[in-house]
Amino acid sequence: MIGMAVKELLIEKQETFLIPAENVANVMYLNPLSHALLVLSQVKYSRIPVLDKGDRFVGLISLSDVVDKMFDLTKVDLEKLNEFTVADVMEVNVPVIREDWELENVLHLLVNASFVPVVDEKQRFKGIITRKELLKAVNHMAHELEKRNLVIPKTSDKESEMKVI
Amino acid sequence: MIGMAVKELLIEKQETFLIPAENVANVMYLNPLSHALLVLSQVKYSRIPVLDKGDRFVGLISLSDVVDKMFDLTKVDLEKLNEFTVADVMEVNVPVIREDWELENVLHLLVNASFVPVVDEKQRFKGIITRKELLKAVNHMAHELEKRNLVIPKTSDKESEMKVI
Repeated sequence: MIGMAVKELLIEKQETFLIPAENVANVMYLNPLSHALLVLSQVKYSRIPVLDKGDRFVGLISLSDVVDKMFDLTKVDLEKLNEFTVADVMEVNVPVIREDWELENVLHLLVNASFVPVVDEKQRFKGIITRKELLKAVNHMAHELEKRNLVIPKTSDKESEMKVI
Repeated sequence: MIGMAVKELLIEKQETFLIPAENVANVMYLNPLSHALLVLSQVKYSRIPVLDKGDRFVGLISLSDVVDKMFDLTKVDLEKLNEFTVADVMEVNVPVIREDWELENVLHLLVNASFVPVVDEKQRFKGIITRKELLKAVNHMAHELEKRNLVIPKTSDKESEMKVI
C-alpha cells in the first residue's frame, strides 16, 4: 500500500498524467509495414500504439520490430515491407489500464514499460500515461512532502523485536 | 530541495541505480551507420551511447537517426549507410552526470530523458542511470515512507496567511 500523504502529492496533478489519444501517433493493425516505417520515422517515440477500425487498442509496434523484418542479414529490403502488415510484427498482450486507474497499479506497470495505454470499457484507446509525466509528479512530491508535513520516524521494528526477545 | 525522509528512502538502494558500462550496448563514433543499424536492431533499447577510442562518452544514437538517413522518400538505401558514420547522425550535447551524482539532479534530468549517462572526470563512460531503476526506488519509497514515519500536516500556509490578514 502506498501511504496517503505520498499518494495525495503524487496525484495532485493527475489531470496532466494522461496524454490524450488525439496527441499520440498510432497505426492501424492492417496497415502495411512500409506505412508503419514512415510513421515511426517521423515521430520521436520508439514505440506507438496499434489500433483496430473501432479505435480499440490491440498492441504496440516499434521501429525495431519493423527494421527486424526488413533486415535480411546483409541487405535491407523495402519490398519485403509491403508483404507484411503491422499485425504481423506488433507486440500483443500489452498491459492496459482503465480511465479510473489506481496509482499503485500505474507505478507498478511503469517500472517495466515507458508508457501504459489507457482504454475505456470497450477497449477503445483513450491515451497513454508516461514515465515522463509520472516523474514530474515524483519531483513535485519529493519537493513538497516535507514542506507540508512533519515527518517523524516511528520506533523501528528492529528495536521492538529486540525488546520482545 | 528534496526532503530528507523522501531522499533517504529513494537512495536506500542506490547501488542498483547504475547499469555499468559493460552491460550497456554502445557504438564507436567512427563506425559506419550499417554497423550501428546492426547493433541497434539487436538490442532492445531505442537509443544507445556513442563512445570514442578512449571510451569517452560523446553522444547518443537511435534507430530513428539511422532510419532517417537511409529513408529517401520512397526507397530505403542500405548503400547510403556505408557513406556515413555514427558521428554524422548522433545526438550531441547530451547532459551527463558524475559518479558522485546528486539525487535532485538525476530526478530532474530523467524527466526529459529515459536514461542519463554516467562519466568519470575524464568523460570516460561508466554506465547509465535509467528511469526504470529510479521508478523502482520511487515504488519502494512510496510504500515505505509512511510505514516507517509518522506524517503530520503542518499548519497550512493558507491558514497562516488568513490569520495575518
